[in-house]
Amino acid sequence: MSYGLLKGKKGIISGALDENSIAWKTALKAHEEGASIVLTNAPIAMRMGKINELAEKVNAEIIPADATSVEDLESLFSKSTEVLGGQLDFVLHSIGMSPNIRKGKEYGDLNYDWYMKSLDISALSFHKFMQVAEKLDSLNEWASIVGLSYIAAQRTYPFYTDMADAKAVLESIARGFGYRLGKAKNVRVNTISQSPTPTTAGSGIGGFDSFFDFAEKMSPLGNATGEDCANYIISLFSDFTKMVTMQNLYHDGGYSSTGISEEIIEMMGK
Amino acid sequence: MSYGLLKGKKGIISGALDENSIAWKTALKAHEEGASIVLTNAPIAMRMGKINELAEKVNAEIIPADATSVEDLESLFSKSTEVLGGQLDFVLHSIGMSPNIRKGKEYGDLNYDWYMKSLDISALSFHKFMQVAEKLDSLNEWASIVGLSYIAAQRTYPFYTDMADAKAVLESIARGFGYRLGKAKNVRVNTISQSPTPTTAGSGIGGFDSFFDFAEKMSPLGNATGEDCANYIISLFSDFTKMVTMQNLYHDGGYSSTGISEEIIEMMGK
Amino acid sequence: MSYGLLKGKKGIISGALDENSIAWKTALKAHEEGASIVLTNAPIAMRMGKINELAEKVNAEIIPADATSVEDLESLFSKSTEVLGGQLDFVLHSIGMSPNIRKGKEYGDLNYDWYMKSLDISALSFHKFMQVAEKLDSLNEWASIVGLSYIAAQRTYPFYTDMADAKAVLESIARGFGYRLGKAKNVRVNTISQSPTPTTAGSGIGGFDSFFDFAEKMSPLGNATGEDCANYIISLFSDFTKMVTMQNLYHDGGYSSTGISEEIIEMMGK
Amino acid sequence: MSYGLLKGKKGIISGALDENSIAWKTALKAHEEGASIVLTNAPIAMRMGKINELAEKVNAEIIPADATSVEDLESLFSKSTEVLGGQLDFVLHSIGMSPNIRKGKEYGDLNYDWYMKSLDISALSFHKFMQVAEKLDSLNEWASIVGLSYIAAQRTYPFYTDMADAKAVLESIARGFGYRLGKAKNVRVNTISQSPTPTTAGSGIGGFDSFFDFAEKMSPLGNATGEDCANYIISLFSDFTKMVTMQNLYHDGGYSSTGISEEIIEMMGK
Repeated sequence: MSYGLLKGKKGIISGALDENSIAWKTALKAHEEGASIVLTNAPIAMRMGKINELAEKVNAEIIPADATSVEDLESLFSKSTEVLGGQLDFVLHSIGMSPNIRKGKEYGDLNYDWYMKSLDISALSFHKFMQVAEKLDSLNEWASIVGLSYIAAQRTYPFYTDMADAKAVLESIARGFGYRLGKAKNVRVNTISQSPTPTTAGSGIGGFDSFFDFAEKMSPLGNATGEDCANYIISLFSDFTKMVTMQNLYHDGGYSSTGISEEIIEMMGK
Repeated sequence: MSYGLLKGKKGIISGALDENSIAWKTALKAHEEGASIVLTNAPIAMRMGKINELAEKVNAEIIPADATSVEDLESLFSKSTEVLGGQLDFVLHSIGMSPNIRKGKEYGDLNYDWYMKSLDISALSFHKFMQVAEKLDSLNEWASIVGLSYIAAQRTYPFYTDMADAKAVLESIARGFGYRLGKAKNVRVNTISQSPTPTTAGSGIGGFDSFFDFAEKMSPLGNATGEDCANYIISLFSDFTKMVTMQNLYHDGGYSSTGISEEIIEMMGK
Repeated sequence: MSYGLLKGKKGIISGALDENSIAWKTALKAHEEGASIVLTNAPIAMRMGKINELAEKVNAEIIPADATSVEDLESLFSKSTEVLGGQLDFVLHSIGMSPNIRKGKEYGDLNYDWYMKSLDISALSFHKFMQVAEKLDSLNEWASIVGLSYIAAQRTYPFYTDMADAKAVLESIARGFGYRLGKAKNVRVNTISQSPTPTTAGSGIGGFDSFFDFAEKMSPLGNATGEDCANYIISLFSDFTKMVTMQNLYHDGGYSSTGISEEIIEMMGK
Repeated sequence: MSYGLLKGKKGIISGALDENSIAWKTALKAHEEGASIVLTNAPIAMRMGKINELAEKVNAEIIPADATSVEDLESLFSKSTEVLGGQLDFVLHSIGMSPNIRKGKEYGDLNYDWYMKSLDISALSFHKFMQVAEKLDSLNEWASIVGLSYIAAQRTYPFYTDMADAKAVLESIARGFGYRLGKAKNVRVNTISQSPTPTTAGSGIGGFDSFFDFAEKMSPLGNATGEDCANYIISLFSDFTKMVTMQNLYHDGGYSSTGISEEIIEMMGK
């Protein structure tokens, strides 16, 4: 069912790897709601991904960009406004990767070059998106920018190691740049702190299954799915949420505000 | 412009006093987006208010209820589902009053009977709404319940006295009952922490003008208006936000995440 | 081992029921660190308690007071400064009781008279303490006031029902009155959000054992004991923490900042 | 006046540049309270600083170390335990620098190499401290580690640019490593979010005076001074706070919990 919530709006969606990606689902939904989209992803991710399939479905151009490269991002933003025929109304940042997690490094044995890489890919890229967009004046008045985060930015999850720090930076950047773009062009910037989601990226993290199950049992509504998240992102891109900015918004079925659930109490009783 | 976001949805909107009320604007907007509404207010508020005018515009029945009376609320909920022809999909709680503020009592000289009255009217009424609704099984699966709060629940505003404590309870009730209704019927419960809004109720608070101006200067997007708030409430009543629950959501143009703004720095420099 | 941290300081300690009470341990510790103390408790609690035993140990006078009665509190504060020979340097509020919990009422079936009683005893009493103390000018410059809270003020614990709301008010009062007393006399006011503690009061709450065990497994340092808490309170009464005010301070072995622990992951894996 | 609070304790204090430094004052205080100390600073900072003067006063050895160099830190920790004759009971991390701020770069025009340098010096160094200390087993059971932070990690201060992001990482590292060291050796790790303090480092930030003045007017107790902070640090190094960990502790005279003060209301009224 479509409401035309994004009719006439133009935007960039990053990070659609395959049909499990939140970005993938968001692209479908945004298209359904009337938006015109450009898709982007890292050249290397695209080779493995099925992004062409998605591009066809949502009638979008694909503009590859390494999100750590200012040059690539300049090309992404200038081409996007060209292709879409005007300034952008929304941007989804859905990019994250930690070499330390991939290589199974514990938090007490991090490789610091990789740590820097985690921050660069997963957090600084969000800053670069906005610095480039501001310099090129690529954003429309009241544009909405969303980054995807996780509650590890507030509480420790042993298996999430340096990605927790990266998410803390991501959320801080949302506040810092949200202030700036708010003043400049009434642009709003927020992060969504999403339930653990069984995407192809997420499932690479050790202990994911146990934690997914724990979060499911703790959340009164259960874990929010990727599709739920896509819906929520659409609401943040719409004109119904114009004054929400510089926030980290929990989209987690109530997990963040639940101290303990009856299921967990029961489990403990055993 | 209407999207039909609430098409087929039924709900109760409390607290519409006059055209400055957030509830008033929400009723207009909800009607516009396709919802069927029941309006309610305290019998005493209704005598002074112009709620009949609103009722006509949004084609709604008015069911008076003292929000501190369980009996009145039982009548409100049972009649509402009858009038609307089914269970409720949304409820707006927009009720607050402090005798201590009205009488100009400072926080160090509170009248404790009035304090209890502040809590009863402004916070417990939210619990009563939900306890009654649950007992009468008045809520539909995935219903959305919203209460209006203010950042005084987190930070002190000297002129806000016992209403700060009332808002702290309100937000706590949203978490406590959100857990319960989430498990029972996938109902979500949230509070919106809204910018200072020049409603007829709000303007009774001393120092309001200075504070309104301060918040305006601090917020990158300026203060969110009552109409902005109505829009945001609609998004929370819609199906795009189904997994957001037990949250206190800042709707304030970035105020809550701004430590200082350039305007305030400039003012300090003088 | 004693450091003389509270040498020459005078204060009131409320809520010592028996040797399991945090207040009991705090009285012992404060005495050890050189403070002069007045003990207080509700007349009814005293009859059952062994407070006389404690009074002897710490060389303290007992002044009974119903913490909901302004009159009783006026007598408590005026007699205390008389007995101690000067204004107070510290006050511990350690008072809480919920008739709804005692009678096993669920959060969806609360008795509202009892709810009001929970708030009055567990939270408003904190306000009354300070309103009376300010009016009688019972507090010394840089006095330190501490209330005991629990993380249920931020996250939902189904078994904690209306005490969660009471704790939310308690913490709000600490901010509101902390502002006021800070300006007036450089007095600081804080709450400690303590680990679940097997006191005689705490153990009355259903599901306590399971939850205690859960918190123990989640906290990197384990649950903080009542004795640990007494130590922490002493640090907040001392001159080393003079600029900490209007805070809710987690004293919980890291529980509040832990999303999941390896023990819980393991348990989930089974 | 001395209480012997740190009698027999050994620790490292970093970041003492001159007598305005919080670290300088902490070293004096820790010495006064009976601790044995090693001082450290970057070789380049030491050339300009007067650290030798301090070292003499507190009877400490100086071990220079570039806090971004794992090698230097290995040398620092291994020599420190040697010099002090045992494992460490406390560590103060008081290190921060942003080339972007120094060069007057706005948040929308950051140099990304410098950004990485800000993070490396101001935040990753905290991780490196702990990773090295854990690997070398330099920490005693129940050791206490403190880092200095600022509320810019939660709210935006336009002039603080990338240091805000660095502080967000710092606080995240405190949680992540606090979990780990807590489990391993009952070590606690916290950050103190300190009032703006007119240190030699702090005063380099544009708009500092206006902001200092604003914070002074907002805080019920006024801004916490460097000396106040030293006292608070001592309390966190002492045995009175053993169960506080993974927290960011506001030490700010109530600033963080004050929405508006009467002084600011008055100023707005003009």
